[in-house]
Amino acid sequence: MKVFSVFGVSQSGKTTTVEGIIRELMRRGYRVGSIKNIHFQGFAIDTPGTNTWRHRQAGAEMVVARGLRETDVLIPRQLSIEEILTFFDQDYVVIEGISDTLIPKILCAGDEAEVEEGLNDLVFAISGRISNRLSNYNDIPVINALSDVERLVDLIEDKMTSCLPFIHEVKQCHACGVSCRDLASRILRGKATGTECLAKNEVVIDVGGQELSVDYLRQMHIKNTLIKVLANLDSYDGDKEFFIEIRKRNNGMEV
Amino acid sequence: MKVFSVFGVSQSGKTTTVEGIIRELMRRGYRVGSIKNIHFQGFAIDTPGTNTWRHRQAGAEMVVARGLRETDVLIPRQLSIEEILTFFDQDYVVIEGISDTLIPKILCAGDEAEVEEGLNDLVFAISGRISNRLSNYNDIPVINALSDVERLVDLIEDKMTSCLPFIHEVKQCHACGVSCRDLASRILRGKATGTECLAKNEVVIDVGGQELSVDYLRQMHIKNTLIKVLANLDSYDGDKEFFIEIRKRNNGMEV
Repeated sequence: MKVFSVFGVSQSGKTTTVEGIIRELMRRGYRVGSIKNIHFQGFAIDTPGTNTWRHRQAGAEMVVARGLRETDVLIPRQLSIEEILTFFDQDYVVIEGISDTLIPKILCAGDEAEVEEGLNDLVFAISGRISNRLSNYNDIPVINALSDVERLVDLIEDKMTSCLPFIHEVKQCHACGVSCRDLASRILRGKATGTECLAKNEVVIDVGGQELSVDYLRQMHIKNTLIKVLANLDSYDGDKEFFIEIRKRNNGMEV
Repeated sequence: MKVFSVFGVSQSGKTTTVEGIIRELMRRGYRVGSIKNIHFQGFAIDTPGTNTWRHRQAGAEMVVARGLRETDVLIPRQLSIEEILTFFDQDYVVIEGISDTLIPKILCAGDEAEVEEGLNDLVFAISGRISNRLSNYNDIPVINALSDVERLVDLIEDKMTSCLPFIHEVKQCHACGVSCRDLASRILRGKATGTECLAKNEVVIDVGGQELSVDYLRQMHIKNTLIKVLANLDSYDGDKEFFIEIRKRNNGMEV
């Protein structure tokens, strides 16, 4: 699963850029998910008076609306990007409106001042309204997501050859010799692959005697899921090492 | 995690009953989640024109709205109850509007005809508008969720001593000697505990040399999560047995 972010100030063309990218990734046969980061204080997706709203008002910590054509999981707190990514299993996840992570980024801007404001070492393309006027800025390609989306998505495919093994800096690690930000920047420039990351080999997966190489993000996803499921068992009591064996289905049972 | 359903025809008092139950469970210190099953054809929680709506229209398979005070996971298809339950880790999950599962049930009704229509061996209480007039129906307690919610939640606590190891019939199993429905009914009547269920020991968890007793629902949750995470790895190729070791955190690293 490859994750990147489209960010920039309001009215710079973020959503239009994201729409173009999603359509083109889909056209190429990829499965795509997206996250929209919403800064608006009053944002609430449910409507006062609905049954789901009443469940929430009564105190439910999580409410799911299960419709005939959609399922909506409503969680009354802001989750971290790491937590949110555990919901996805698509090929690509596009995030709109996040700039404070180590995720590779496309910067949307209306003019040079907005580019200068947003530019950093994790930006691999510039798009948005400024792409009507410029095609390059300090050797970073400026690409219009309406008229030239194929070239933009070619660049995404090229840059996202590896998924990042982390989203934020892994504190007190430096096991690979550099900071996570430096490693992210090197991966983006094709000078590292992500396998250099040595953070926390806490989850070891063995298939037929071969150990799988599992990156840090997936390790944390697996560990947190298992602990969440096991925490409800009377027979499990916390921070212990454990082994799990997943057997092949060995009979005709179906559910 | 204990799961039960409140069902009945429209206007029978389902949402009012669910509200009362959630409030009382919370008052007793439990963490509670809920699911509302919506039969209305036109149900859609998002509003045409929003950025998340535009992501979905562009083709995103899953869209997350990450607000300052809420996170909403929008999935454009109806998930099964089993899939939805994997989102929860609360003590209790109350489902409104589902009758076609093996989950223990509270029937809401406005009159005797509606009780007769809905009654079955998995109903352990009756509530809703009829509870203004009756206190018992064929030896099943009829309890008002507004005036007598403590007694209703006492009954829930009493009946939900065990969580069901399944939600629907496990096809072609009968390993325990009876159907899943019969076992569910026996659990509800205190004549079985759920540990009788022998469905599919596909997931074996070992903590310090002791094998944990993990019910079928949790086994499927763990297996499906792991396969979903591993499916994205180039080094994993499908339906094989595998072993996972979760190690204790052995240094001061934090994230």
